[in-house]
Amino acid sequence: MSHAANLKIDDVSAYMRELGQRARAASRALAAATTAAKNEALHNIADDLDTRRAELIAANRKDLDAGASKGLDAALLDRLELNNARIDGMIEGLRQIAALPDPIGAIFDMNFRPSGIQVGRMRVPLGVVGIIYESRPNVTADAAALCLKSGNATVLRGGSEAFHSNQAIAGSIQRGLELAGLPADAVQVVATTDRAAVDLMVTMPESIDVIIPRGGKGLIERISASARVPVIKHLHGVCHVYVDDEADPQKAFNVALNAKTQRYGTCNTMETLLVNETIAEDFLPGLAAAYWDRDVELRGCEQTCRILGSDCVPATPADWDEEYLAPILSIRLVSDLDEAMDHIARHGSLHTESIVTENYSNARRFLREVDASSVMVNASTRFADGFEYGLGAEIGISTDKFHARGPVGLEGLTSVKFIVLGDGHIRQ
Amino acid sequence: MSHAANLKIDDVSAYMRELGQRARAASRALAAATTAAKNEALHNIADDLDTRRAELIAANRKDLDAGASKGLDAALLDRLELNNARIDGMIEGLRQIAALPDPIGAIFDMNFRPSGIQVGRMRVPLGVVGIIYESRPNVTADAAALCLKSGNATVLRGGSEAFHSNQAIAGSIQRGLELAGLPADAVQVVATTDRAAVDLMVTMPESIDVIIPRGGKGLIERISASARVPVIKHLHGVCHVYVDDEADPQKAFNVALNAKTQRYGTCNTMETLLVNETIAEDFLPGLAAAYWDRDVELRGCEQTCRILGSDCVPATPADWDEEYLAPILSIRLVSDLDEAMDHIARHGSLHTESIVTENYSNARRFLREVDASSVMVNASTRFADGFEYGLGAEIGISTDKFHARGPVGLEGLTSVKFIVLGDGHIRQ
Repeated sequence: MSHAANLKIDDVSAYMRELGQRARAASRALAAATTAAKNEALHNIADDLDTRRAELIAANRKDLDAGASKGLDAALLDRLELNNARIDGMIEGLRQIAALPDPIGAIFDMNFRPSGIQVGRMRVPLGVVGIIYESRPNVTADAAALCLKSGNATVLRGGSEAFHSNQAIAGSIQRGLELAGLPADAVQVVATTDRAAVDLMVTMPESIDVIIPRGGKGLIERISASARVPVIKHLHGVCHVYVDDEADPQKAFNVALNAKTQRYGTCNTMETLLVNETIAEDFLPGLAAAYWDRDVELRGCEQTCRILGSDCVPATPADWDEEYLAPILSIRLVSDLDEAMDHIARHGSLHTESIVTENYSNARRFLREVDASSVMVNASTRFADGFEYGLGAEIGISTDKFHARGPVGLEGLTSVKFIVLGDGHIRQ
Repeated sequence: MSHAANLKIDDVSAYMRELGQRARAASRALAAATTAAKNEALHNIADDLDTRRAELIAANRKDLDAGASKGLDAALLDRLELNNARIDGMIEGLRQIAALPDPIGAIFDMNFRPSGIQVGRMRVPLGVVGIIYESRPNVTADAAALCLKSGNATVLRGGSEAFHSNQAIAGSIQRGLELAGLPADAVQVVATTDRAAVDLMVTMPESIDVIIPRGGKGLIERISASARVPVIKHLHGVCHVYVDDEADPQKAFNVALNAKTQRYGTCNTMETLLVNETIAEDFLPGLAAAYWDRDVELRGCEQTCRILGSDCVPATPADWDEEYLAPILSIRLVSDLDEAMDHIARHGSLHTESIVTENYSNARRFLREVDASSVMVNASTRFADGFEYGLGAEIGISTDKFHARGPVGLEGLTSVKFIVLGDGHIRQ
């Protein structure tokens, strides 16, 4: 069974220190683990989850009952639930990560220098990754698998409402690791619901190299405010589509409609549409009709509402900074590309920005000058996603510029060190 | 003249906020600046420094006089001094950075995905870089030049003892920028010696994207402790050379001697020598004689001192963690590669580690398993350096794993964003 579960937790601080030391020790073994051992562990975990479905569902039942009696709302209870389909999803995810190429140990850019040494880089794990997340227990398996494949030890701290589910998944992970000859401590799930554990995790740079919070903006801001460890943050997505005066109208219609309506609650959904004023009268009414058909509320600038009439809600200044995550769209007319890029620089959240245009120079300027984790030409913002980009899987989307930017896959969980090969070379 | 100098500074907090906002605004122009404009600015700055040597030396005289009357020691006064040779050095550095390839805007890894979109990466600036440094005024020109070339705006905060020198250099930088049509605010030197400015700089994530402290361990620890902005840290270097039982004795002798004695005060100097016990009796006495010839104090483990006799100082446990930065070396015998790597994992500072061996498998394991920013085979640790590695110049050496590791050149001052090219593509 889980090592963590064997520890007595009356002193949370000592417990977390112990957990951190075990993770640090395990990280050395994991950094040196063969690709075969890591893949075997991932398949073992998948097999273990598969054969212990009943246990898993029973543990999850405890969480669901406790949640229901605490009065959690239906949406939260739904996210918390583990059923056979969701267990299938976890298993499938583990096997997909096993099938991805191993990034660790890759050597590149080896060049000889005038001194005679040969210098290059080797991709290495970050070390110990701390994951802090909320109610969905499948994150336990997904996050552990990505960290394991990238050679990192992991300390996972899930939401208290998923405690029993997470501990059951942890059991499968640790059995899978040991069966593959890897240390069980390579993945540890914090076995206390004491919130002090989170404060401790983000202030243990000696044991944890990076924190990845997965959850709402509130969680992430709280963690960032107290962290003494680097945090890969995903704050929010205020994404724009700019329809240029040289846009192909059909492409613009398709992209604008898809970027807003393909899903409403995702961070890469467009929240504000910017339209060049010279084409707005021709372009906007047809598009607005399509939005209204789908019950999307339109909040327009003065000019937009003049074109669209009384069904258009006048936008307030706050609308330009809003992440609606809902069937609401703000629309603003701009006089040119520069005004569009100024608007994005002021109101965007560095997430995903798209231009629709057939004009080569405008496309090129937009790609170069817009500061965001994903910048697109003639494509829906909804494509900003690890799977769509071919990363295989993602542990999150970073809205930071430091280290990893945009969808974070295996490579975002690694670092590179310099390697130097000589033949007894000394510096003159 | 310098914008900063035009500001009244009775409210440091308002002043720093204003500085930060100007930097943020300038960073957009700089991110979009052409390679030609950036290089022209670098040459302009070099020309301006060249023609204003007298002004520069006069400003530096003020700092030197103030320093002398404050009783600064000779070493500090020496670091503070700007003479013609040092001004030549700054000018040469600026022209070298102009000659380096521009990393910004480079596009790579563009691949088509099954959906039809083409996804790749573009190298982009980090945004605004804050540099906090101590007495050497040439850092003002070096750091500004690296940030400028990599498309970042910069806020520089030098030591109070170099105040007038730094302001004079800032004048040259800002004239050089404006002459090239770039915003003077792209490089701002904080025009107050109030230490509150440092505390403010490290807590303005809305204006500053990353802090690079250049100075002693004390400065860096103080900054890291209060920073709310990512910090590229260079803490210290406890570097090892491990002489394997299958080392070529002549290579081992050369590397061990060079790694310790080529310079004593640098972070990539070896501080502890690990020797396989099976070769120690043959190998150590000759090497020890060479060290003693150079007045290097040897502090050995029990076995080492048994071999080397009474001139060997018995090492205490504290010696294994010490960065001497002096002609002192600790020596420890180990039974095998694993014990050597265990010692390094326990006592190393993740900086630079080298193995001397002719054994293929040991070399390969050391390269893969040792966690440090530079890992070497048969080469002196003294090679760990941006120039030696071909980075052209370095803004520092990172002992962090996150973002940049080891010598940080232009690329370490950049990030990559995803770019997506479509033809009206929407997500299904």
